[in-house]
Order: sequence, then C-alpha cells, then structure tokens
Amino acid sequence: MGLGFEVLRTGEAGGRRGALSLPHGEVQTPVFMPVGTAATVKAVPQDVLEGNGAGGKGAQIILANTYHLYLRPGHELVRRMGGVHRFMSWSRPMLTDSGGFQVFSLSKLRKISPEGVEFRSHLDGSKHFFSPEHSMDVQIALGADIAMAFDECVETPATWERTRESMALTHAWAARSKDRFEAHKHRVPWHEALGGQTQSLFGIVQGGMYADLRRESAERLVEMDLPGYAIGGLAVGEPREVTREMIAHTLEHLPKDRPRYVMGVGYPDEIEEYAKMGVDMMDCVLPTRAARHGLLFLREPGSSEITRMNIKKKEYAEDQRPIDENCGCRVCSRYTRAYLRHLFSSGEPLSAVLNSIHNLAFYLDTMERVRGELGRGDSDVDFAQAESQNRRSGAGADRRVSP
Amino acid sequence: MGLGFEVLRTGEAGGRRGALSLPHGEVQTPVFMPVGTAATVKAVPQDVLEGNGAGGKGAQIILANTYHLYLRPGHELVRRMGGVHRFMSWSRPMLTDSGGFQVFSLSKLRKISPEGVEFRSHLDGSKHFFSPEHSMDVQIALGADIAMAFDECVETPATWERTRESMALTHAWAARSKDRFEAHKHRVPWHEALGGQTQSLFGIVQGGMYADLRRESAERLVEMDLPGYAIGGLAVGEPREVTREMIAHTLEHLPKDRPRYVMGVGYPDEIEEYAKMGVDMMDCVLPTRAARHGLLFLREPGSSEITRMNIKKKEYAEDQRPIDENCGCRVCSRYTRAYLRHLFSSGEPLSAVLNSIHNLAFYLDTMERVRGELGRGDSDVDFAQAESQNRRSGAGADRRVSP
Repeated sequence: MGLGFEVLRTGEAGGRRGALSLPHGEVQTPVFMPVGTAATVKAVPQDVLEGNGAGGKGAQIILANTYHLYLRPGHELVRRMGGVHRFMSWSRPMLTDSGGFQVFSLSKLRKISPEGVEFRSHLDGSKHFFSPEHSMDVQIALGADIAMAFDECVETPATWERTRESMALTHAWAARSKDRFEAHKHRVPWHEALGGQTQSLFGIVQGGMYADLRRESAERLVEMDLPGYAIGGLAVGEPREVTREMIAHTLEHLPKDRPRYVMGVGYPDEIEEYAKMGVDMMDCVLPTRAARHGLLFLREPGSSEITRMNIKKKEYAEDQRPIDENCGCRVCSRYTRAYLRHLFSSGEPLSAVLNSIHNLAFYLDTMERVRGELGRGDSDVDFAQAESQNRRSGAGADRRVSP
Repeated sequence: MGLGFEVLRTGEAGGRRGALSLPHGEVQTPVFMPVGTAATVKAVPQDVLEGNGAGGKGAQIILANTYHLYLRPGHELVRRMGGVHRFMSWSRPMLTDSGGFQVFSLSKLRKISPEGVEFRSHLDGSKHFFSPEHSMDVQIALGADIAMAFDECVETPATWERTRESMALTHAWAARSKDRFEAHKHRVPWHEALGGQTQSLFGIVQGGMYADLRRESAERLVEMDLPGYAIGGLAVGEPREVTREMIAHTLEHLPKDRPRYVMGVGYPDEIEEYAKMGVDMMDCVLPTRAARHGLLFLREPGSSEITRMNIKKKEYAEDQRPIDENCGCRVCSRYTRAYLRHLFSSGEPLSAVLNSIHNLAFYLDTMERVRGELGRGDSDVDFAQAESQNRRSGAGADRRVSP
C-alpha cells in the first residue's frame, strides 16, 4: 500500500486530470515536480516552496537525486535522520530518481556490466558501485514516496542495436529492482509511523528514439505490473518533434489507470503540451538552473506566447515593471526588473533566490492552469465523483493501486 | 524636518531606551541595523527581513553602502528609480554610510588631498573622485533616511600626530558635508511624496585610539549641531577594551538628546554591552558574513554565554537539534543542524540564506531583549509618556529635532 491513482477526467487529446494519493499526501495531476537535487530545491527555502505558485498552493511534490544524496551526505545518514522528508523538513510527497541518469551523465570512468555500474564520484574521484539492488537500498533509505527502477541511459545518438541492447539491460535491471524493492520495502524509515505504508516503485521505459523499441520497452515493463511508469531517455538533445513523437507513441502502450511520468522535461510550453497529451508527472531542473543564469520565463501582456528574458540585459536596467505583469508570485508582486538586474549583475546571492522563486511559480502556475483546462468539460465535472470508467477495477473505494 | 529622537528611559550605566522618528517610520532604540551593502542584505529576501527576529517584528532599519551603490548600479539610476527604498522595495527606514570607509578599505590607488579622494574602483579599476560634496550628492540621490558626513578613516595603528591631522580633515569635511547637504537636501527623491521631509545628516567622530582626540573630535562636531553623531574608526583591529574605552569616553562628550551611533560593531555580546553603555544605533556585516562562512551564533541552553558554532564540523552531521534551542527564528523552528551542515558542505545556495536568517534573528533578538531590559525600571515606565527631562527643549509635541 503506497499509491492510489484516480483519473478524474480525460480530454479529447488524451490529457488527464487526476489525483495521486501517496503516503505523504495527495497530488493533483498533471503535476510539475521541482528538482531538489541535494535535498534542497536550489536557493529556495522550504516555506516558500510550500506557498509560492499554483495560486499559493505551492509545490505538491518535489524530487531529490539518489546519486547526489548517496554521495553526500550518504543515504545511511539520511535514514538515521528519519528519511529525506524529515532530513530536509518537507512533509509533502517526494520522488527519488534511481541514480542511473546521474551515474551516466556526471560520474567519471564508468564501467558497465550486467551486474551494475562501477564509477568514480564527480566530487572526489572515489570509487563506487551501483546495481539495481543497491539503488533500491539507497532509495528505501532515503524514503521518498516514489522510487524509480535502476535503468541504463544509452548515449545519444545510438544505433538501434545498441539501444535495444541497453533497453534489455534496463528491463533486466527493472525486474531485479522490483525483486529487491518488494523484499525490502518495509525498511523505509517511516514504515511504522505511517501505518505500514510503503514507497511505490515506478518502471522506466527506454528505447531511445526508436518507436518499435519504445513499444517493446513499455510492454515488457507493463508485464511487471508496476504502480506507475516513467518515460526516460528523452530531452537528451533530440529535436522536440522527436521527443513529442516518442512520448505520444509510448503513452499508447501504457495503461490508462497508472500515472505516467516523463523524466527531465522541459520548457514551460513543453510541459503544457505533454500534459495535454496525457502525461501526469514531469520534472526538470530548467526553472531553477535557468534562474541562476538570469533567464526568466514570462508571458508578454496580451499574449499566450511564453518568452524568456535575460535579466542581465541593459534594457532592463531601469525597467520598473515586474518580470511578468500577470504573475502573482511573491517576486513579481514586490520587485522590479531593474532591481533583479542589479542583483544579478552584482553577483548577489539574493538574485538566485528571487529568480528561482519566480521561475518555479511560472511552472507551477502553468500546470495549475492546465489542470483547470483539463478539468473543464462541456458539463461541469464533479471531481469528488471520479469517472467510474477510469477507475481501476478492483482498486475499490480506497482508490489505491496495490500491485 | 527629518528626525525626531526621544529618550524614554536612561539606566544607571547610561544605556538608553529610546525612539527615533524618521521619514520612513519609527525605530525603537537601541537598534541593530543589518547591512544591505548593495541594496540587499546578502541572501535574505526583504519579506523575511520584515518578519524575522525581534519577536517577528524584524529589522526596523537597514543600512546600504554609498560606495557600492555609487559604483553599481549608480546613484543617478537609483534616483530615477525613486531612491533606494523603492529600488529595493524596502519601506522602512534606511541609513547610508558616507562611502569614506569603503574608499579607504576597498578601493585601489587612493590619492587623498584636502579636496577629496581620488581612487580606482575595486570592480573594474576605473578612476573616481569622492569629496564631501560628492558624497552628499550621492547620498541625497540614494535617499536613505539618514546620511553620514564624509570622513577620512586613518590607517591603524597611527601616531597621535597623524591621527590628529586626519581628524582635522574629517572635521573640515564634515562642515563641507553639512553645507552641501543643507543646500541640496530638498532634492531627495521622496521629498514631495513625504510632505517635504528631508534626510538627516549625522557627523562622525574620529580620533583613533587617543582619548584626547576623541574628545576634541566630539566637541568640534557638536558645535556643528547635527541631529545625530556617530563614532567611527573603531573595531579596526584594536583590543576590545580599547574599543570600549573609546566609546565610553566619546559618549561623555556627545549630547544626551541626540542619537549616538557606533559604526561597524560587532559581536553579539559587544552590541549588547555598548547598548547598555548608551549607544543607540549599531551596524555590522558580521551576522551575514559569518553566516556565509558557516559561523552561527547561539546561546547554549541554560547559559547566557554566547557561543559561535562552525556548522561545517563533523560533530553536527547527525545533530537533530536546531542551531539554538531558545531561538524562535524561522530557521530554528524548522531545520536541524544536520541539514544545515549538509547544505553548507554541499555548497548549496540555501545555506547562506538560512544561516543569514538565523544570525540576523540572533542579533535582532539580542537588541529586542536589551530594549526590554533598558525599558524595565523599579517602577513601570509608560513609554507613551516620555521622561520630560530627556526631551530636547523646543522639540515640542511633535517630538522632532530640527537642527
């Protein structure tokens, strides 16, 4: 018992308005999950995260990176502190990735074998080994609400043969991840405190930019009957049409009654587009990383077009307007572009704080609006009365999926 | 019209509980002023400053540095933005220093003449010239509630002769500062918006570590009949007994009905000590600068002793306690030492934010407590009924000093 998912309404294009129930609370979907790599959404205090964006409701769920927390401060330390929620003082839902993507993108001198991956830390060069079993042990110690199966991320571009080989490894690792997770899931730090609940393990569909492999990967993972499925290996440099095509194609082969999560995307218009195609969850470092580089998202007044503003430009030096005149975040309601430019130009630490707060609000507001649009139909939808055809048979009144 | 000062009660040791009335609001004294060098108290958002510390009342008045704002973004830009209050969105009182101390401590290739100081920017090596007149023009453009006379800061240690020479220059510059200020004070950006009010110009007592020169400096400045007096040139490396002695000696020669401000001090126990000796205002970068280096102030439970904790130490890695168990700041009420150590060790930007918030709260709480102690007497003091003997004759019912 760890996850319930209910599709409240599905639009014509496949977009779904749903609700995800997790040990640390309910999440309205589609949802954007801010990334808190090292158990901190960079530069943003937790109380701001809780109240900024989405009409003051803030972030419903955040992500933390297994690879980073494993290296520093160490997952066993986090376990002794009561898990990542208590460690960072965040009581809402969380998700940890498997560490796979970071091992492949950040670490040095990787040596991959069917058993797992040997690598050197990007921090101090020390040697480590990650296997599906180890990823599960680390993620159970961290104790996010949702854990991810350990996957291999193929380099890009890659041939069909190389991609298929990597995908097969990902499937074998998913099965091993599930076995280990099922055997050890009761070890999550909050198991007793939350009435015997456990984390939920999601699988990750791979298959590169090959539609047939994406289908095969989805089918293999669905056979494992996991409570949710992610689409990985996208937004790694391919054209956006390809990303979209791979998402659309993969979604067709994923069960409608389980949450579908596209990892690591994207720009604000992308997350809106994918949500309307039927993606329920997304995460990306973009809002916070762009913010630290002075790149701010906004909609020009009277336009639905999303613009990116480079706050360091001279043209903003005396601009007394907020970043976005239609934004109600605590940055736009208080500070001018002129001041934000000054902070950025002066290398002031407050620059990253305020820019990140705005960009996160922009993302969270975007998804709040998308949820509103998906929730509106020809007739009023009563969300308390979920559409029964979208309920998973057997999930029963407690709305929980217990694979 | 720009300043009112009322001493509400004076303790036996000379400490005064007072109230300072400024164009942007009232300030309860003794007061600690957080330093917002570049129109930002480093790493702390303005709304946090407004509500953190001093029982949720936050910072009553903050300081900004004339030298920094002159160089970047430029005082004329700040004037066009409506002054530093509007520029940074801070509606409570502010004070700017004269730029003197920074010209002498940060800039390069200084060339001092009776006319003023030629120097090169520490940012880009560009050549600049500051005179008392220019410092006034810059400070009037910035528009803080209190401006400071332009002073020379003598190197330390310095001989009596050298110190006296420098002090004489400071006095000449103070007179020129006052002349320029009086002639141009109506040009402050908010002059009309605040009903014709103006800034107030404080003089700065110099005289190094020589009691006779401190006395002479105080006497010369008092002759200029300024609305407040600062004691400068202390906390520059001398032993603390010397600082204390210089403060005590100088206070004797300053009028009791004017606010007395010691610049650039100090540790929490120092600001408490000086406040109880009769200092009304203090500022220091220490709480925020120490915070960015992981140094946090606290009182050990059951002790009145102030301790400094180096949060990067291994011993805090699994310490689930807050920084200070008796502190009610938003950091101590939410985060553990273990988490704060992790943020610092990981170089996370949130580290500076949270550490600064706590240290500032510690300083503001300290002064709030001191105000409480100074306000308590053998009989209850009704602060609405100021002690009439401390009122400046002629200040009248509006409690304003109009020199």
